[in-house]
Amino acid sequence: MSIVVVGSVAYDTIETLNGGAAKALGGSASYFSLAARFFAPVSVVAVVGADFKREHRELFVERNIDVRGLEQRDGKTMHWQGRYHEDLNKRDTIDLALNVFSDFKPALLPDQRRSDYLFLGNISPTLQQHVLSQMNSPKVVGADTMNHWIDSERAALTRMIAGLDILTLNDEEARSLSGEHNLVKAGRAILKMGPKIALVKRGEYGVLQFSRDGMFAVPAYPLEEVVDPTGAGDTFAGGVMGYLARHGRLNEGILRSAVVYGTVMASFVVEKFSLERLTTLTWEEVDRRYRAFIELTDCQHPRWTSQ
Amino acid sequence: MSIVVVGSVAYDTIETLNGGAAKALGGSASYFSLAARFFAPVSVVAVVGADFKREHRELFVERNIDVRGLEQRDGKTMHWQGRYHEDLNKRDTIDLALNVFSDFKPALLPDQRRSDYLFLGNISPTLQQHVLSQMNSPKVVGADTMNHWIDSERAALTRMIAGLDILTLNDEEARSLSGEHNLVKAGRAILKMGPKIALVKRGEYGVLQFSRDGMFAVPAYPLEEVVDPTGAGDTFAGGVMGYLARHGRLNEGILRSAVVYGTVMASFVVEKFSLERLTTLTWEEVDRRYRAFIELTDCQHPRWTSQ
Repeated sequence: MSIVVVGSVAYDTIETLNGGAAKALGGSASYFSLAARFFAPVSVVAVVGADFKREHRELFVERNIDVRGLEQRDGKTMHWQGRYHEDLNKRDTIDLALNVFSDFKPALLPDQRRSDYLFLGNISPTLQQHVLSQMNSPKVVGADTMNHWIDSERAALTRMIAGLDILTLNDEEARSLSGEHNLVKAGRAILKMGPKIALVKRGEYGVLQFSRDGMFAVPAYPLEEVVDPTGAGDTFAGGVMGYLARHGRLNEGILRSAVVYGTVMASFVVEKFSLERLTTLTWEEVDRRYRAFIELTDCQHPRWTSQ
Repeated sequence: MSIVVVGSVAYDTIETLNGGAAKALGGSASYFSLAARFFAPVSVVAVVGADFKREHRELFVERNIDVRGLEQRDGKTMHWQGRYHEDLNKRDTIDLALNVFSDFKPALLPDQRRSDYLFLGNISPTLQQHVLSQMNSPKVVGADTMNHWIDSERAALTRMIAGLDILTLNDEEARSLSGEHNLVKAGRAILKMGPKIALVKRGEYGVLQFSRDGMFAVPAYPLEEVVDPTGAGDTFAGGVMGYLARHGRLNEGILRSAVVYGTVMASFVVEKFSLERLTTLTWEEVDRRYRAFIELTDCQHPRWTSQ
């Protein structure tokens, strides 16, 4: 089944102590769709400016990502500039120019409204609600958010998440949204706000999944080198939603596998700057790392227990 | 098979924003043995002062911990005073009085020298080597260390760990010992220094296990409340070594289970101040949490996949 993702398509300028990328393709919807497309057909809904390069549109099209909803307008594409510390868990936003994104008002096409899977990237909860109201009766709706909206639009955010299937957010955001410092309490408090599932992203420390069936804890895939963490969360969400759409149903077992696939997808994107690694990634590589991840985390596999 | 542990038995004064403990029983050998004793017979080798309370010796004896090697001398028992930040991952040492521990020169009893399992708690690498040299031919030797020894006695430490089976250390110590910031590189570099297995402790984020068979990543057991992290690492080591001694052999499967049991034991000790929780803990509770932990981390269990 196909997925609609609504979010940003942007140009990112990324600086780290070991190099960077200038005006590279980025944005939540880009990362999400380049990960999700390994599992299911994806439609992108976003806005770009007149400067958006044909090669970047082609990059989506060549990977069977539906770009009918990638609206091009006069003006410039959103631009984000960030600088990472030596500790790549920390970054500063040097510049954020919303440009054409500042009056983005997503309108879904008729077939998109009938889609079973929807992911609302990190845009204002009011816009997320606006998209939700256009949908017929989606099976699974996921959304991401960030501290900015938790602080500035808490009421709209609370309304938006009340009916969600899946909310993704990082550990600090989970604390801020719930008012609980302890992550177990935070996760449980967030479920009480409505979402059926909360996926708390902890960067290099992995993910805590909260659902009505309990908790699931997965470490991140340990990498020898992390080059650029930009987009890891959106790539994770793309893997999760992609896997769910591919399976067409949602239970605890399928959800856990989806979270592992999301973790695997995220482990690739951080290996190179921007979303470059996702453009060369093959299914064989995904499958190999999925199996390596299972081996990495499994203490009860016959391979180990029969020795 | 039985385990000998050499380390500190101390009195700890612990301060947190939510209370504390004054002159509570502590020290690496205390935490270790109170965890390991659930799995195998344990002999403690340590030194205490004339002020060491009879009730604390009894606490060990009642749990079948062999205290023949718990030497009592004139003078005072080692005392450590620490203050935790609101973020319990951070603490300051307010006071450290080594007292009788300052000229501790452990001498093993003849039957202890023939033991198959030895754990060297966090004491100077020179003392650790001194203990090692008294052993006949142990099957599994584990040791813990800390930044202080990495900085001040690197040469002795490097010699001591060269023949180790298991080295436990935290993430910062792994970075410092190896000179590698990335933990995967750090773990692999440490294996090249000699230990067959390196267990890198990441506090609330779990453990990374490095061995010749590859990596194993386990999250910590997510708790609703962490009261006092003191001794978590020693308790973890007690669970790991205890499980290995109980099984009498060491392969990747047994090692992984041992690391999970270590994680489970550590999850209990932090629930109360000092080592209080270990004194009331029952095997039923350990077993229940072990099963909960497997469920928490397992994405391929029939319970999930058959839904």
